[in-house]
Amino acid sequence: MPVGTLATVKGVTPRQLKDADSQMILSNTYHLHLVPGEDIVKKAGGLHAFMNWQGPILTDSGGFQVFSLSELRTISEEGVTFKSPRDGRVINMTPEHSIGIQNALGADVIMAFDECPPYPASREAVQAATDRTYRWLKRCIVAHQRSDQALFGIVQGGTYLDLRQAAARQLVELDLPGYAIGGVSVGEPAEFIHSIVDATAPLLPKDKPRYLMGVGTYREMARAIAAGIDLFDCVIPTRLARHGAVLVQGERWNIKNAQYREDFRPLDDTCPCYACTDFSRAYLNHLIRAKELLGYTLLSIHNITELIRFTKHIRQSILNDTFTTEFAEWLTPTEPPNILHESPHDPA
Amino acid sequence: MPVGTLATVKGVTPRQLKDADSQMILSNTYHLHLVPGEDIVKKAGGLHAFMNWQGPILTDSGGFQVFSLSELRTISEEGVTFKSPRDGRVINMTPEHSIGIQNALGADVIMAFDECPPYPASREAVQAATDRTYRWLKRCIVAHQRSDQALFGIVQGGTYLDLRQAAARQLVELDLPGYAIGGVSVGEPAEFIHSIVDATAPLLPKDKPRYLMGVGTYREMARAIAAGIDLFDCVIPTRLARHGAVLVQGERWNIKNAQYREDFRPLDDTCPCYACTDFSRAYLNHLIRAKELLGYTLLSIHNITELIRFTKHIRQSILNDTFTTEFAEWLTPTEPPNILHESPHDPA
Repeated sequence: MPVGTLATVKGVTPRQLKDADSQMILSNTYHLHLVPGEDIVKKAGGLHAFMNWQGPILTDSGGFQVFSLSELRTISEEGVTFKSPRDGRVINMTPEHSIGIQNALGADVIMAFDECPPYPASREAVQAATDRTYRWLKRCIVAHQRSDQALFGIVQGGTYLDLRQAAARQLVELDLPGYAIGGVSVGEPAEFIHSIVDATAPLLPKDKPRYLMGVGTYREMARAIAAGIDLFDCVIPTRLARHGAVLVQGERWNIKNAQYREDFRPLDDTCPCYACTDFSRAYLNHLIRAKELLGYTLLSIHNITELIRFTKHIRQSILNDTFTTEFAEWLTPTEPPNILHESPHDPA
Repeated sequence: MPVGTLATVKGVTPRQLKDADSQMILSNTYHLHLVPGEDIVKKAGGLHAFMNWQGPILTDSGGFQVFSLSELRTISEEGVTFKSPRDGRVINMTPEHSIGIQNALGADVIMAFDECPPYPASREAVQAATDRTYRWLKRCIVAHQRSDQALFGIVQGGTYLDLRQAAARQLVELDLPGYAIGGVSVGEPAEFIHSIVDATAPLLPKDKPRYLMGVGTYREMARAIAAGIDLFDCVIPTRLARHGAVLVQGERWNIKNAQYREDFRPLDDTCPCYACTDFSRAYLNHLIRAKELLGYTLLSIHNITELIRFTKHIRQSILNDTFTTEFAEWLTPTEPPNILHESPHDPA
């Protein structure tokens, strides 16, 4: 899922998103609550109508942002109190409030409000946050008002694999329509992600969507898919684009580099996206160097197309029963390029 | 002609430009000389290939920008010396140099290098600049190397109508493929534009394109068309978009205004553009308030579509012989909203 924080995937039209074969997108409850506010989105007919995206949408619960972006928060059993970074007003976010906002936004999939402990944190602190997340999940289930929205639970437990596994078993008993593995990129080294996913994903039902939150680079996705994950979100494709970085067949290039100034080939002649079929590396180099909006749009289109193609190739290889051989290079535990560590959970 | 200063109409893809019924665009020689440089554009196969715009392109001569944007310029019979605002290097721009750059860029229409006197200026100063512009034009004709590019001359003469008329008569004797009226928006009050156009346009051949440079708002275009003008360029549609301003049926709105926050109607339900068919005023208000790139793209698409529709309606009314009655409100000398005075000749 490309990330459309404020009801727009930055710099990309819904038509362009569809052309990139995006099946589903994510929007951020925390940000949409601040602007324009869920009331306006609801009056517009919900997120789909407001932003004119006809495909599925998932909203996160706001939990991650409350814990990572907000100032002056106090955490209690009731919920979290924080100061709006927009206007300084004090906002009280509870499980009921998060679900109320998500019901108003009207996404197809909504997420339970969770407590995301920082990394590193003591076993006791993580245990307490995980237990509270479970109690909050049960309040979310009670608060949830719309049968046309699927509420997913989130497995927490930090880097303590036994806590993750206990949380997963607890959640599965609630028979939810889908499950997410959360809080895996709040600062942990990349290798932790794979340990967490390997320990947790097999405990979640195979016949329901398993979603790894905030992850979306080649190696992380390939390895998580091998462990059973079906769904990802990540700001990487659009954020990289705004820094002039492009993903090409598993590599990351900086299109601003002088070597592309007179390179009149397409970014990737195997890629069907608009940036690759209609423009050259030299033109993209020029646009990004000149800080032209079109450059951000074209690189975003390409990066989204590229990562979706990557997962489509994996899907096909699974159907062909060639996944582990075709994608062997991505399934090794080699440390990947350090692009995951740019807070991929943050707004795009 | 929408303005694509750096080989891109800001925030708009060539496909979107075509969907807006743009027939022709303008690019700026001065800016393209600075970045990426005409050599790269030439190696790419010219501007059309570089930016993937298959329709006609016009490049200006750089004269206006040299005179309005540059520092430390010295003007001589040979040309103009100025300091690059990019890297401080001293650039010598002559008629031959301007034509050489434009030959390399490869637009369909190129412009003679002219001296643009400031406003106000004495009759003697304007006379000298106009005479020099004529001598430079003759050097441009000699320097011009490509028979597949039409070289237009530019009528100067400031606000001295008799100088304008004398210059027009002189230029017509050179039997050029097209003629422009230049330097009408370097600070003159809007009413001067109409006096200049009314005095000059009728002296230019009816069977050749007559181009009013840097003008492109409703009233200015309507009145200039009545005087015989065929071609315009203006940054107004894209520049207004970046300030959240939209042109709707002859009016200018600020879409950021609170009145649009919950206005779920299209911008203009008679407009066929993507912004109007697929999105609401409330969504555009949200995007622009949140400084989202998509907002600038959608408003640019709308404003370009709107001004092109306006000229298409005029064209049809001329064919129907109803122009002066249908567009009576635009043909009066009422002072228009002061949007022309934002240096419309500057880069978009």
